[in-house]
Amino acid sequence: MISVVEPRKVGRPRATGDAGDSRQDLLVAAAELFTTLGYAATSTRAIAQRAGLRQASLYHYFPGKEELLAALLEGTVEPSLRRFAELAPVDAPALVKLWALSRFDIELLCTGPHNLGALYLLPEVNALVRFRSEREALKEAYRSLVGGSELLADLVFGLVEGVILTRREKVISDVPAFACAGADASVRIAGCAEEELAEVRAAGSALNRS
Amino acid sequence: MISVVEPRKVGRPRATGDAGDSRQDLLVAAAELFTTLGYAATSTRAIAQRAGLRQASLYHYFPGKEELLAALLEGTVEPSLRRFAELAPVDAPALVKLWALSRFDIELLCTGPHNLGALYLLPEVNALVRFRSEREALKEAYRSLVGGSELLADLVFGLVEGVILTRREKVISDVPAFACAGADASVRIAGCAEEELAEVRAAGSALNRS
Repeated sequence: MISVVEPRKVGRPRATGDAGDSRQDLLVAAAELFTTLGYAATSTRAIAQRAGLRQASLYHYFPGKEELLAALLEGTVEPSLRRFAELAPVDAPALVKLWALSRFDIELLCTGPHNLGALYLLPEVNALVRFRSEREALKEAYRSLVGGSELLADLVFGLVEGVILTRREKVISDVPAFACAGADASVRIAGCAEEELAEVRAAGSALNRS
Repeated sequence: MISVVEPRKVGRPRATGDAGDSRQDLLVAAAELFTTLGYAATSTRAIAQRAGLRQASLYHYFPGKEELLAALLEGTVEPSLRRFAELAPVDAPALVKLWALSRFDIELLCTGPHNLGALYLLPEVNALVRFRSEREALKEAYRSLVGGSELLADLVFGLVEGVILTRREKVISDVPAFACAGADASVRIAGCAEEELAEVRAAGSALNRS
């Protein structure tokens, strides 16, 4: 989980000195600068400075700016892929799993102070092979839950990732309620009838709590 | 409508010499460079060159890069706003109008060689007051068609704009079929029952042809 930190002065003693914190501070700083200033306009120097580190220290953790971008983007799909892997063996109807995955995924995309999904549309993302293949795998997961239809998978995945565009314009004040309504919308697209919806929602919620 | 053009050499005689073409050529060049190279990495000089014009000529049509971005983005919402204005006085159920507007809007976002919606997430968009207010007006249009619910409007609008993210990853080969399925998904989110769907779709299609 990425949290907001205040910038630190270079050379100031670290509150906690371990490597994990510096790496995390760099990710937080990069997330903020990439989403506010823009990826192209952000230098590794600015990221290091914002994280309270020297530029040379940044290169100890990340070969460059692109690897910071990759790490941030992978963090927006890997938890949902793991959630799907946990849901896969469970004995439950596909619509229930679709509700649970959509709920989890929308909440993930709404989490954290910075809208990292906004970075999906950067031209530089074409070069991020691992992120792209993980995102493709996540779309395949959705596809398996909508009966194999590519078209339905595109639409459901578009709905889920559409929250990135919503978040671009406004603060989503009640994320759980928003994610729950989004999961309802997801199963509706997949053909869930109104009279089944309450049951699918209850079973999907229960799956996410288990 | 924006179409692909081959770059022209500076100073070469124009195929057709009128001002409308130069302005249009600049928009086409900017659309291509912004979506492939990135907005920050594109100079007005590069745009002019790609359009076969001198940099000074660019400034005759646009005060700067930002105004080119604004014009391109406004082109992704204004036709849908006009469509809504045409639909508004028509005597038809809200779900039918929602189907028609969603169908039109998704097709618009899928049209043209460059995925202009990918520019929505640029930090620079914050400064584009007119585009932002038009996009807000379009979301209000959707809201009026989903019974006033802000949450449903966010989800339907997210679904429609979600095609920008789909288009980022793949070529949508059959745009009319995709837009039609997207409009189905839109009215499903708004509560259209399975047994009403065929009728809503037929009536919505008829509205768009009228």
